[in-house]
Order: sequence, then structure tokens, then C-alpha cells
Amino acid sequence: MADPANSTSSPFDLVILGAGSGGYACALRASQLGLTVALVEEDKIGGTCLHRGCIPTKALLHAAELADGARAGASHGILTTFEGIDTVALHARKDKVISQLYKGLTGLIGQAGIEVVTGRGRLVDASTVEVDGEGGTTRLSAKTVVLATGSYAKTIPGVELGPRVMTSDQAMDLAQIPQRVAVLGGGVIGVEFASMLRSFGAEVTIVEALDRIVAAEEPSISKHLTREFKKRKITALTSTRVASVEADDQRAVVHLESGDPLEVDLVLVAVGRGPRSEGLGLEDAGVTVDRGFVPTDDRLRTNVEGVRAVGDLVPGLQLAHRGFAHGIFVAEDIAGLDPTPIDDVIIPKVTYCDPEIASVGLTSEAAKGAGKDVETVVYPLGGNGRSIIRGTTGSVTLIREKDGPVLGVHMVGLGVSELISEAQLAVGWEAHPEDIAPLVHAHPSQGEAFGEAAMLAAGRPLHAHA
Amino acid sequence: MADPANSTSSPFDLVILGAGSGGYACALRASQLGLTVALVEEDKIGGTCLHRGCIPTKALLHAAELADGARAGASHGILTTFEGIDTVALHARKDKVISQLYKGLTGLIGQAGIEVVTGRGRLVDASTVEVDGEGGTTRLSAKTVVLATGSYAKTIPGVELGPRVMTSDQAMDLAQIPQRVAVLGGGVIGVEFASMLRSFGAEVTIVEALDRIVAAEEPSISKHLTREFKKRKITALTSTRVASVEADDQRAVVHLESGDPLEVDLVLVAVGRGPRSEGLGLEDAGVTVDRGFVPTDDRLRTNVEGVRAVGDLVPGLQLAHRGFAHGIFVAEDIAGLDPTPIDDVIIPKVTYCDPEIASVGLTSEAAKGAGKDVETVVYPLGGNGRSIIRGTTGSVTLIREKDGPVLGVHMVGLGVSELISEAQLAVGWEAHPEDIAPLVHAHPSQGEAFGEAAMLAAGRPLHAHA
Repeated sequence: MADPANSTSSPFDLVILGAGSGGYACALRASQLGLTVALVEEDKIGGTCLHRGCIPTKALLHAAELADGARAGASHGILTTFEGIDTVALHARKDKVISQLYKGLTGLIGQAGIEVVTGRGRLVDASTVEVDGEGGTTRLSAKTVVLATGSYAKTIPGVELGPRVMTSDQAMDLAQIPQRVAVLGGGVIGVEFASMLRSFGAEVTIVEALDRIVAAEEPSISKHLTREFKKRKITALTSTRVASVEADDQRAVVHLESGDPLEVDLVLVAVGRGPRSEGLGLEDAGVTVDRGFVPTDDRLRTNVEGVRAVGDLVPGLQLAHRGFAHGIFVAEDIAGLDPTPIDDVIIPKVTYCDPEIASVGLTSEAAKGAGKDVETVVYPLGGNGRSIIRGTTGSVTLIREKDGPVLGVHMVGLGVSELISEAQLAVGWEAHPEDIAPLVHAHPSQGEAFGEAAMLAAGRPLHAHA
Repeated sequence: MADPANSTSSPFDLVILGAGSGGYACALRASQLGLTVALVEEDKIGGTCLHRGCIPTKALLHAAELADGARAGASHGILTTFEGIDTVALHARKDKVISQLYKGLTGLIGQAGIEVVTGRGRLVDASTVEVDGEGGTTRLSAKTVVLATGSYAKTIPGVELGPRVMTSDQAMDLAQIPQRVAVLGGGVIGVEFASMLRSFGAEVTIVEALDRIVAAEEPSISKHLTREFKKRKITALTSTRVASVEADDQRAVVHLESGDPLEVDLVLVAVGRGPRSEGLGLEDAGVTVDRGFVPTDDRLRTNVEGVRAVGDLVPGLQLAHRGFAHGIFVAEDIAGLDPTPIDDVIIPKVTYCDPEIASVGLTSEAAKGAGKDVETVVYPLGGNGRSIIRGTTGSVTLIREKDGPVLGVHMVGLGVSELISEAQLAVGWEAHPEDIAPLVHAHPSQGEAFGEAAMLAAGRPLHAHA
């Protein structure tokens, strides 16, 4: 732990509050660039993403895919049976994945010479952080403070959490698979858990107040997901509000503002994530907080000089890889490398339900709202050999400016989570479809669907009608 | 069928011999560009790739993945068992995939107004093709003839094919899974079948004359595949030559030039594919043929004016998507669009064994041979969250010119077949790692491994040691 005496004699170049995706990426990059760094964390390095978010959910979703593969086997000539879930092995595997990544990450942090300070930090002023740790209080002096405390799973006011009513934090570790589940919220986290729990054998109902699930995506994607979920017997009640939830030892009941109450074994509250900005001394230090978020300029500077913010605290997409990019940006900016600001528009979004959703850039509506003259093409995965082989449907929608660059790419279908990598390169580089069309995609791959969409947008379709 | 009278009165802009990947792509693009096209095919439109190559093998390999998923299930908490292969259902599924794609393709061809001429075509002279079909002989007159007859599965001189000794053509439709298999040849087709048959339960031995399997790939990839195959109990005998093969109703024996003979139930001859150029009248028309291949210049022109060649007939990579690119190129070139020649270096290569192999651009050896000052970075999939989740190891190797563009990308590991799409864009666009590094990959995805390799090559690693 840092010696309090350090704080006055030799300030750190950076003191980072929070060692999640944004915080640790900032710390690693800053240390590469020769800056001195203190990284303050009250829990484990790696944060939500590694311990309670992306990684454990994707491990569970991979298991879900194996369950579905076993169910589908016979139709592919593979004689298999799905006999159920061994939750002990399920969580052991998931925890092993986390451990392996955690070990790698702590190794990197350790070797980088980053000062890790364990405890809860708060801002005293723009250049001083106080950490309450096990050994007492430590004061850290900083040339720059980076706020990277991330987000938490929000709950619904009036809905009490308990053994039968929980957020994703607890649902990650279910000791047994419930028979009937209500998922409150049809956003990313809601549909991922709905998909996973269905694959594990539960009957699932999603309750969403908006008129469609995954409402941040293209309307056509919401429609496709709803249809595919219906085939999987996942019910999505949209435009439906929750009045109250009651639960006892035996069951939980979700009372809706309209319609019959849902009696279930588990209620998952998945109404999004809120910024974790309370108790950090932000107001005392004069840092503006807006509905919990910390607004910044495009260089991630707060209103207080010497205080920056990154990741989920900053209004915009709440994604681990945005956190990485923010953290790296701040380190490079402080080191004087003059990096390009991170625009949310170049950041890919992936939802790992079955079918998967992946998108980057502008939606049709946003593109039109920005006054662009846009052209949209849709390439169906039904024309893509490998997608047919994998038994998935879906599509690649490519939005371009007329005679201009690719503005957005929106995909749905099993496997698209890995296709968005190429699309983000195209959007990030402001490529024209004509730049992509002459390049060659491997056959048969799902990636060809993006190539075919580009060929179509460039007016030279191959396996498609013009 | 075309009226012979057509041949003198009104020549087709293009007469294409062969309706495989190269031929039909050329026909479709030419017809889009307003050219008149006759497409001559003695078998089915779609050729080897659709009916006896890429598509059926990948359907079988997907089934193999499901079998392996069922075996691995328990370690992920999914209680499944693998009980064997139902070959009737296996082939029914594979044939359904082919049918669906075939239906789509014939629909496209039909709607494009392409004249499909069924029969075996041969060149009479540079502007005349004679087709022997069911209804007799038809003469087609052409402004340009495109040779697109593709390739066939080669055999070993002296080795007789039969019920227990076959090439991939027959092995695609095995009525039962053999217990013991010898695969002669450790190239792409050999390792794909070895992997598939092992997943289906066979004991597999590969016999390869060269000193490593997949010898066209980076040596490190051959090494990784050999190690992973060994874990799967696939034996690879390298630097080993076949002396003879004998077979009867009960078994087959492969006699090696050194070592004990292999007694097996099936011998798969997988020694590559040869160009299908015999009996086409090429010599009569004065077209140069070199060891069966048809040499061309970079605009795919043969030595005879008005005769072009595309796809597997042309020396170089034998891949369906190279055929597509060639076919499109020729159509656009004839239409006067002045397209950029297709360099094999931008064409991705994928081998769909487990673990998969995917590469694009120059190998280290080729890059050094070209006198380039190269830098190579390796990012292990062991540092990539989603690869850990999927239970795969492997790596992404990125070769760049010092202070210059990405020259080659070489990947091995489950899932890399879909990661090469992004890499081919980078190689095709001659991007520098510094252009890729600031862009954002979705977390957690296997695609991040390519992003991390680019960050490492750009001197700004994230989840890696510098």
C-alpha cells in the first residue's frame, strides 16, 4: 500500500478510482508510457466485466449453446441427448474461466509497476484521493484523477430483492435452474438471461415497458429476435409495465399494470445499469454530476481541471470495450500523444442471446436524423452457406451514405458476434462499400454475408438479387 | 438449349465452360453488366464447391463440432452424451443444405437470363465451343471463351480406388463410419477429413510425405495442429511415403516405404486436386497447358486472344472464393470496367479442422524472401476471454513490414475461420497496425485477439506483455 507520506512528497501522475475495464486499461497504458499510477479498488481488479458481467454471462451462454447443440444434434445426424444442467459443474467452469483471466490480468498489473491501493477511494479535492482500506486511511496525491468506478445493476423502486427476486449479480450463480422465470426488462441483459435460462430449460417471460425488446437496435432486429424467441417459446410482453412484485419462500408474483399476474419461481430484474458515483466526494470536489453520470468533453475531461472520467460513469454506451478505449485514450492524452477522441459511433455492440445481435455505427433512424442521404441494403443469412449449415437465419443490414461511406452495420443471427469485428473496421475507417466489394471473403464463411452486403451496396451483388 | 444457328448469326459475348464457382460468378456478373452469356455445364450448376467440396464437407464438419460439443458438455455443466452417428440423418441434413443453396443459385442464374447449355463443351477454336449434350451437338460462337472447368480429386498412381480406398468425392457419403482410417495426405482436405472422422469416432492416422502437415501454412501452425491432433489421438506420420495400398472386402492395408504397414477399414486418398483440362480441345485451339494448368497473365488472359481462364485451372490457390473473384474480374474486365487484378496474396485460406486454421497474406518466409524488413507478433488465444470460454487455444500471428503495412495474418484455434474476414480487409487495404489499434473490438469476442495483435504490433499492447 502507498505510504501516506508519498502523497505530499511525490504525487502520482495518475490516481485511478476503480480497477474495472476503464480503470485498469488506463493504468496499463499509462504505465507503458512511463507515468506513475495508483490504482484504487475496493473489490477485485477486473471489475464488473470480469467478475459479474461480460465474462461470466458469456461462459454461461456458451454452456447454453452446448445445451442447444445437444438438443439439435439428432437433426444433424449426431445422436445426443440433453439430460439437464449440473449447476455445480456449470459454475465451476465459469469460475475457472474468471480465475484464468484474473490471474493473467493481475500478472500484467503487477509487472507494470502499478501501485494497487486496496480500499474505497473518494475525492478530497481535484488532486487528492483518500482511500479507506483495511489498514486505515491513505491519502494519495495526483496530478490527474481518473474516475472509473463503473456501474451497478439497477433495481425497480419498491421491488425488494431476495432469494426469488434478483438482479444479474445474483442470477449469475443460481444454485438451481428455476422452472418459471419472469425477466423484467428486455434490454441487452434481459434478453441474454432470457435466452440462457430458456436453453437451460426454464419457461421464460420477458416484461418490457417499451413497445419492443432490444429497443436500442434497428426495429427489424427487434422483430427478428421476437420471432425467434417465440419459436423458442420465450414470451415477450412489450408495452407492459410492472405494478409490483411480491415473493415468499415458494414463489414470486409479478403484478402488471394490465393483464394477468405472472406467477413464477424467479424474477430477474434487468432494468439496466446505473453509474456508480455516490459517496465518491464528487460534489465536494466540485465535479458536476448529472443524474448520477459524470459528463465530460470529448477528451473525457470533467468540469474540474485535472479530473477525468471513463467508462460507464460517462453518459453513453455502457460497454467494457468502451471502457478500455476510454482508459487508453486518457493515458495517451495525458502523456501528450494527442489521440483521437473515442466516438461511440465506432464502438460495436453485441448481445449474446440466441440469435445473437451485433451492430456498429448509426441506425437508419439516426442516420436520417443526421440529415444524411442514406441507402440501406439487407443481405439475408438464408443466402449464406455457412449460416444454413449452422441452422441459423437472420440478416446483415448495411447503411451507407449515398455515394459515401458505410455509416452503420446491423446484424442478427447465430454467429454474428464475431462478424462485427470486420464491420467496425469498415465504419471506423469510413470505408465505402466499393472499397470492400473487390476484396475476397473466405467461402464458406458467415463473414461472406458482410462481403455480400457490401457488394450489394456497391451495385455489384454476387449471391443476391440486385 | 442454344440454337446452333445462333453460333454464326449472333455470337455470345461470353461462352463459359464450367458452371462451378468461377464460371457461374463470371456469368452472373457479366449478365449484370449487359453481356450475353452461355454457361456450359455437363453436371450441376454449382460445381465441386457446392456438390462435392466446400459445402458438404463443412456441413459434415459442423456435425462433427456438435459431436465434440456433446462430448465436452459435462465439463461445462451440460449433461449430454454422445451416442454415435446416424449417417442417414447426417447425409440427409448435408443434402438439404446443398439443395437449399442449389435452389437459390439456379434461381439467380435463371433470372439473370443466362443461357445454360447442358453437356460437355470443348474448344474448337478461340471463338467456337462445341457442346455434346443429350440432344446432340451444339456449336456456340463467342467473342470471349472463359475456361472454368475447375479441378478433380487426384489419386496416387498405382493405387486403385474402390469401396475401401476412396477420395473425398466418395468419402462425402460414407454409409457408415469406419473404425480405422488412413488419410493419405496432410494438406487441407486430409486434415479436414481426419478431424471430422475422428469426431465421428474413427481412429485416424495421417500419412504425409512432407515433414509437416498443412505445409502451406506457417511452421508454428503445423506444430500447433500436430499437438492438438495428438491430444485428439489423431496420429500424423510425417516424412512418410506410401509404397502401395492393397484392399479386399474386409480391410485395406497401406504399405509405407518405412515402418509397419497400416491395417485400416478405409483409406482416404487426399493428395490434392488437379486441374481439369483434358479433352477440352485446348491444345487444338493453341492454348498453352502447363502440367494440366492453364497459365494466364494477371488479367486472366491465356496465350490465345479471346480465351480466358479462371479458378482452379489457373496456377495458384485452389479455392472457391478465388474462383468467384476471378469470374467477376473477367466479366468486369471484358465490360471495360478496368478492375484491379486479383492477387492471391489478398485471398484468405481457411482449413476447417478442429482447431481451425485461417490465414491471409504472406508467410514469414515469403515476406523475408521478398526482401522485406518484417516484424512478427504473436497473440495467444490463451489471453482471449472468449477463446478460453470456448475451450480453445491457438494464436494470431501478425506479420508487418517495419513501419509499414500488415503483410500477413496467420491464425489457429477453434473459431478463427470467421476472424480472417477482418484480417483480409487489413491485408487488402494495406493497413498499418497503427490504423487498426485505435479501433474498438467488442468484448468478449475472439475478434479481440486480432485487435490485440494489432495493438501489440503498434507498440501499444493492452492484454499482453510488450
